[in-house]
Amino acid sequence: MIGRHKHLIGLEPLSREEIVALLQLAVSMKEVLRRPIKKVPTLRGKAVVNLFFEASTRTRTSFETAAKILSADALNWTSSTSSVTKGETLLDTARNIEAMHPDVLVIRHPASGAPQYVAERVGCAVANAGDGAHEHPSQGLLDLFTLAEHFTRVRGKAGVKDVVPDFATIAGKTVTFVGDISHSRVARSDLYGLTKLGARVRFCGPPTMMPLGVETLGATVHHQLREAVEGADAVVMLRIQHERIGDPLIPGTREYSKLWGLNEKKAAEWLTPTCAILHPGPINRGVELSPEVADGPRSVILEQVENGVAVRMAVLYLLAGGAPEQGTSATEGAARP
Amino acid sequence: MIGRHKHLIGLEPLSREEIVALLQLAVSMKEVLRRPIKKVPTLRGKAVVNLFFEASTRTRTSFETAAKILSADALNWTSSTSSVTKGETLLDTARNIEAMHPDVLVIRHPASGAPQYVAERVGCAVANAGDGAHEHPSQGLLDLFTLAEHFTRVRGKAGVKDVVPDFATIAGKTVTFVGDISHSRVARSDLYGLTKLGARVRFCGPPTMMPLGVETLGATVHHQLREAVEGADAVVMLRIQHERIGDPLIPGTREYSKLWGLNEKKAAEWLTPTCAILHPGPINRGVELSPEVADGPRSVILEQVENGVAVRMAVLYLLAGGAPEQGTSATEGAARP
Amino acid sequence: MIGRHKHLIGLEPLSREEIVALLQLAVSMKEVLRRPIKKVPTLRGKAVVNLFFEASTRTRTSFETAAKILSADALNWTSSTSSVTKGETLLDTARNIEAMHPDVLVIRHPASGAPQYVAERVGCAVANAGDGAHEHPSQGLLDLFTLAEHFTRVRGKAGVKDVVPDFATIAGKTVTFVGDISHSRVARSDLYGLTKLGARVRFCGPPTMMPLGVETLGATVHHQLREAVEGADAVVMLRIQHERIGDPLIPGTREYSKLWGLNEKKAAEWLTPTCAILHPGPINRGVELSPEVADGPRSVILEQVENGVAVRMAVLYLLAGGAPEQGTSATEGAARP
Repeated sequence: MIGRHKHLIGLEPLSREEIVALLQLAVSMKEVLRRPIKKVPTLRGKAVVNLFFEASTRTRTSFETAAKILSADALNWTSSTSSVTKGETLLDTARNIEAMHPDVLVIRHPASGAPQYVAERVGCAVANAGDGAHEHPSQGLLDLFTLAEHFTRVRGKAGVKDVVPDFATIAGKTVTFVGDISHSRVARSDLYGLTKLGARVRFCGPPTMMPLGVETLGATVHHQLREAVEGADAVVMLRIQHERIGDPLIPGTREYSKLWGLNEKKAAEWLTPTCAILHPGPINRGVELSPEVADGPRSVILEQVENGVAVRMAVLYLLAGGAPEQGTSATEGAARP
Repeated sequence: MIGRHKHLIGLEPLSREEIVALLQLAVSMKEVLRRPIKKVPTLRGKAVVNLFFEASTRTRTSFETAAKILSADALNWTSSTSSVTKGETLLDTARNIEAMHPDVLVIRHPASGAPQYVAERVGCAVANAGDGAHEHPSQGLLDLFTLAEHFTRVRGKAGVKDVVPDFATIAGKTVTFVGDISHSRVARSDLYGLTKLGARVRFCGPPTMMPLGVETLGATVHHQLREAVEGADAVVMLRIQHERIGDPLIPGTREYSKLWGLNEKKAAEWLTPTCAILHPGPINRGVELSPEVADGPRSVILEQVENGVAVRMAVLYLLAGGAPEQGTSATEGAARP
Repeated sequence: MIGRHKHLIGLEPLSREEIVALLQLAVSMKEVLRRPIKKVPTLRGKAVVNLFFEASTRTRTSFETAAKILSADALNWTSSTSSVTKGETLLDTARNIEAMHPDVLVIRHPASGAPQYVAERVGCAVANAGDGAHEHPSQGLLDLFTLAEHFTRVRGKAGVKDVVPDFATIAGKTVTFVGDISHSRVARSDLYGLTKLGARVRFCGPPTMMPLGVETLGATVHHQLREAVEGADAVVMLRIQHERIGDPLIPGTREYSKLWGLNEKKAAEWLTPTCAILHPGPINRGVELSPEVADGPRSVILEQVENGVAVRMAVLYLLAGGAPEQGTSATEGAARP
């Protein structure tokens, strides 16, 4: 259970308190992940099935790594080799998996709402690993974790790299998202998470990539990159889909890079000195980000990946039945062999 | 060893006693599968390799789940990424795997006889996970298990869902198979298993899908669905292969559904009140079965999936060297950590 | 650490002593591999990621088996489903994996130098599982192991099959490689390993498949099979790539087989009675080797596969932090639970 919730479908249904409790648990999980012996018996005898209808080695491997560190069994059910190619419906597939007694079913699906649909019809817990343009809640959580680490670092002494994130630091900060907002489940999950934790969100991108009425969700809309990033405490550069480039409504790679990409010069001139740069990956180098920026000192992109494992350990732990009474105490006990 | 047998190639070579002993062991295994902590150390340090030359996430995942619950290491060797695409022969592949010291080699292959051919030439135990139109013995075993559960339930008090299956209940029952009998390894394995345990078997389907001389194996042949299912204690609806639809010898989807499919109306009018419906999956909804019947109260299709894991746990346990002295006693000891 | 080396990129950088220490460790590992319970807790809590940009179920499964026997977690990251298809660079992929805290990253890549490039830029240990036409060091090590076993067997009593290999037996022996030398990373790794251990190496193949200046590396070049294999203590038949057959510079299958393949007759007439035959697999039966020779008494091809697991156990153990003080003593301690 994540607070009152049996499943993790999105960040929209979660309360501020539920999100912070999960993130606090992820702090303990990150400590486990960084041990020389990365293995705790917490979920021994539990099974996690990754049911992916879209290729995503990164997210799948992150969930698989998280499961294995917690001693759960991890099984991968990919659509390319599954009976979906034989015409079985999503629900038949999910019910078949359910009959094999998994504890958590991690679902990625191109259709918005697919994990919710399954969750309402199976007995095991469901974690959404990205559904259409709806939500990607574990990405939202890892972004919150990474931002809080960054803000805590900025608040603290210069040069201290490892900090315990204070999730209260997110309140009052400004975070800008740049790119194809309308197709981004990352932007959507981050928006819900950030606004619940008190941050201000700016969305920036070509008008053709901006959903109508997005302001009602609490974000401000910008069509000039400079205006959108100036004064921001962090910028999340979204991935432009290769398959969208060439679309008549959308600029070409070079045009996109010029208008919406960040390079060294723009970063130096427009960003505050402590502004962090995030990207959900994989990066199109030279399009959204120049290599110098992607690998530069502002980038917390690889910290996002590391924190992704920690956050997913917390998600799996809670969905498979763990209970983090107050803060991290119960979990730390459980997490140490 | 399954009784006198080092391998599981089919149900044809097994005696009634060998089949029942394995099913009894699966009863204990199902109890393990249903525990909150689904893990016993029985096969720790043993390795199970799934060598699949046909895509089948369902069967592979079932064997993989069974292996992991017993603490065996499970490795997947799929043909799409294997050296078979480099021209290596089946036997070279099997011998290469054998040289890595697996304890059980689970083989699915489009050619009838492939697992037998390998079993005669390698040192490790071989489990047939389906070979051409020959046999699919673990499916046969899970069908026997599911039928015995159903018949035991019918015999007992109304409303009791969880029962310990009495495999003697199969004797004297009538089980009807509907569909493409001639290409069905499921029908073949079930026929051997059911007749050994004393059931009567009816085969029903288009004449072009009925093997010649099948009556000599102990089944009666029917070409009218109504006649075939009337009075039956259970009906197994076989999957019609999409690739066969359009074949000039075979009716189209709509025609097939009309003549050989089961819907609510036919089920209500033609079946006895306690007749169960099975399907080896994945279901073509609206072809063999209407959704109402597939998900209705007669359906034991998801119980088949659950029992499949239990039966495969028993198969792997026996092939990897376990010995179930009398009935379940030895195994229960082994199965509890 | 393999001696002074954090990574295993090739055999070229290793000293004779470093190679022999690793092989000695593999002797203990082979003993573990042959136990009825093939599991030691040595690498519990360590993670091995297989990052394969070329299909190779054999090598991947060998590393995966090795990892699991040592109780490490093994994760597979294959290019077909990875974000490489989304345009991510090799280095981005490797850094992403690194951020998930693997202990060893096993890389196969079609480009020579790719593992070295990654190793210089990530924090975890890197094992080269084959890069372009550069090196395939674990294959080189398993060939050395297998040759030493064979030479020790020949030196000892007739009919004794299981021996403890004496790696000093390699000195002074002659080993011939036949086939496409110029594209063979196996030939290259074996050449480095064999010459460091004191063997003489002969290369034989069509002139179009022989790299220029190969003599400077310590091999003699031959263009007649008979001359090349006469007096040799072992012959390594290389795989001819199917995709190369038909190339105007290269003979057809039948021509290749006639000129450069080994059959029963040639083997009987040209080879010494104790000459062993090796092949890195998968074999093109009837091209490089006739089936009689591939499966005959001279063949040690399946021993190569078995020894491959043992050698890779040693590689993973050392790269993940194990230290084999003197010879095998420290490791045997670690390897027994």
